[in-house]
Amino acid sequence: MESRLSLASFDSTGYQAVILTASVVCSISALDIFSQMLHKKVCVIGAGVAGLKAAHKLLTAPGTPLEANDVIILEAQDRLGGRIKTDTSSSKLGLCYDMGAAWLHDALTNSVLYSSIEDASFDVETDGYFNDKQPGLYARETTGKIDVAGLKLQQVVEDIEKFIEIHFSSSLDVPDVSLAQIVATYLEKNDRFLTDSQKALCGRMCRYLELWFGISQHDISGKYAVMSHQGRNLFNKKGFSFVIEKLAAQIKCDILKNEQVKHIQRDVAHKPYRHVVTTVAGTEIGADYLVVTVPQSILSLDATHPYGIDWSPPLPQNIQHALETIHFGALGKVIFEFDQIWWDAGEDGFTVLADAESESPPATREEEAAMFYPAI
Amino acid sequence: MESRLSLASFDSTGYQAVILTASVVCSISALDIFSQMLHKKVCVIGAGVAGLKAAHKLLTAPGTPLEANDVIILEAQDRLGGRIKTDTSSSKLGLCYDMGAAWLHDALTNSVLYSSIEDASFDVETDGYFNDKQPGLYARETTGKIDVAGLKLQQVVEDIEKFIEIHFSSSLDVPDVSLAQIVATYLEKNDRFLTDSQKALCGRMCRYLELWFGISQHDISGKYAVMSHQGRNLFNKKGFSFVIEKLAAQIKCDILKNEQVKHIQRDVAHKPYRHVVTTVAGTEIGADYLVVTVPQSILSLDATHPYGIDWSPPLPQNIQHALETIHFGALGKVIFEFDQIWWDAGEDGFTVLADAESESPPATREEEAAMFYPAI
Repeated sequence: MESRLSLASFDSTGYQAVILTASVVCSISALDIFSQMLHKKVCVIGAGVAGLKAAHKLLTAPGTPLEANDVIILEAQDRLGGRIKTDTSSSKLGLCYDMGAAWLHDALTNSVLYSSIEDASFDVETDGYFNDKQPGLYARETTGKIDVAGLKLQQVVEDIEKFIEIHFSSSLDVPDVSLAQIVATYLEKNDRFLTDSQKALCGRMCRYLELWFGISQHDISGKYAVMSHQGRNLFNKKGFSFVIEKLAAQIKCDILKNEQVKHIQRDVAHKPYRHVVTTVAGTEIGADYLVVTVPQSILSLDATHPYGIDWSPPLPQNIQHALETIHFGALGKVIFEFDQIWWDAGEDGFTVLADAESESPPATREEEAAMFYPAI
Repeated sequence: MESRLSLASFDSTGYQAVILTASVVCSISALDIFSQMLHKKVCVIGAGVAGLKAAHKLLTAPGTPLEANDVIILEAQDRLGGRIKTDTSSSKLGLCYDMGAAWLHDALTNSVLYSSIEDASFDVETDGYFNDKQPGLYARETTGKIDVAGLKLQQVVEDIEKFIEIHFSSSLDVPDVSLAQIVATYLEKNDRFLTDSQKALCGRMCRYLELWFGISQHDISGKYAVMSHQGRNLFNKKGFSFVIEKLAAQIKCDILKNEQVKHIQRDVAHKPYRHVVTTVAGTEIGADYLVVTVPQSILSLDATHPYGIDWSPPLPQNIQHALETIHFGALGKVIFEFDQIWWDAGEDGFTVLADAESESPPATREEEAAMFYPAI
């Protein structure tokens, strides 16, 4: 029997997935029945939302040649969900806290939102809240809320973003600089158009982008800093774990937990499978296809690292290089519960501006912007 | 002698110009010296900013073959400036009021602004004011200012604009509908995402676009409604007439006022000029090129109308059709002076929302949005 899998039907809309390896389907007529090794057509590594969604699509896409027994998912941790994790037990107030993803962003086009409304797993009125009220702005050097409207600060922040767009789109050859640098260029060029308050505060306000990228304004690409959101941001009050649970319940293939992948052998010859995956626990799986949804932070580790994966033969040089040089930002999230509401309960959140940077070296420790959201 | 004019060097950046006719330069070696007719290489019709700027460019562009005597400007009115007109005599407070253009829009890229700063004819601090503070919002059915921030209205207005962008850019085949209709579609589709206040007010808030286009939301193209401004809007406190005066002072050719063009003969054969322009006052001008900056409202008039222009031969059918079907919006501007400041002097302006439209026919007279700017 010769099976072919249509990769073109794979669609990870709305999910973050890293898919590295997919070789052609070979004949599985000569199964190595004497080995203890499990044979699968597809081995998905990682049971976060990317891995689960990939397996789900592979098993349910119209015309798929795959059945439950053809696919297996390996997960290093003892739980599903990866960076989606809803804490339902820590709150003394009975609230759910998402340790990872917490918003349904871009609500005009968010397919997770619309499919969850459709299957009634998410009720916008009960479970959602558009906490997009312009947050109150505070700074260390001032007392009380900054009068953003009266000082016309937002207009200048938007002007800076438009300036950035015009600057970098004026020609393909404009060299990229950091967000910090292009903002400084704007402030210098437009000095005569700005009030003292705008000069003092608007550059620092632009650092709200650090909260989106999870890295410093000195590392954010100026060229790609400004984002175009496809709609508002809907806060998910019930926690995101329902998405994982819903997905897992629909997946009929085996999902093995506590199976950290240690070794991946590629280009296996003279066998009915093209890859062999070996875990720390000793499980061996032969598979035609691999779908690797391991985080880049793990993929970039050396094989000798306890969490590193040993590829043999090694991944191509360009992929190795990419894995070592790209990186994802990280945002810290800290949750406090108070006995009393001491803040204005009508506010959706408040922002503390990063301090102005000292220009004279040695630079002071860089302050990052911070944003606070009262539980809703 | 054979002269050639480089039309490629013509640049009307920052000015609105309608340029209709430009034929090839023909030999001017056989001047019809017995006629009383004036012979010019270029006749510019209209001494508004477009006509003046065109003449200025023609006479000053590097390498131009034209000298002052080669160009003439005809103006129907007894003043220069067209729709730029600064009233300096009506105010009891000694203020200048622009009857037409009053803002330096898109301040990041406005070439008039930057050239006027450069030649010191405009001082941003003295002559300009960014009156872009979010105007207070009022509606007939409510008392006092609407709490735009607290009700999260602006977020939804921006969401509507993003929805419009996504809707019309999803494919080239999406049929255009009016602004009113696409906003209604958004409100219907997103009903469950909106609060009662957002439902009641945000559609009406979108009618601020009527103030940009000068036409009703039922006539504004939904597809092209949302504008991308290239920066902030700088209010011009000294009045725009300085731009006209500056330009006129630099133009060395003749500018004839009170010369309303009545007849334009094109494709003149066997003469050293290709056009003959005749005015109501009887002036006749032969010219190789015409630069017609007459407003579309005049160009679309029938030749029998007192202000209509008689073209012979008639303009090509497609141009006639375009002139009859395109139109420019018009905004009313009314200025009141009060003995006392009864409004909040810290505000840049306030907006009165158009009433909600009655859905049951016969429709009530349509209310338009209105915006008020205290003199600054």
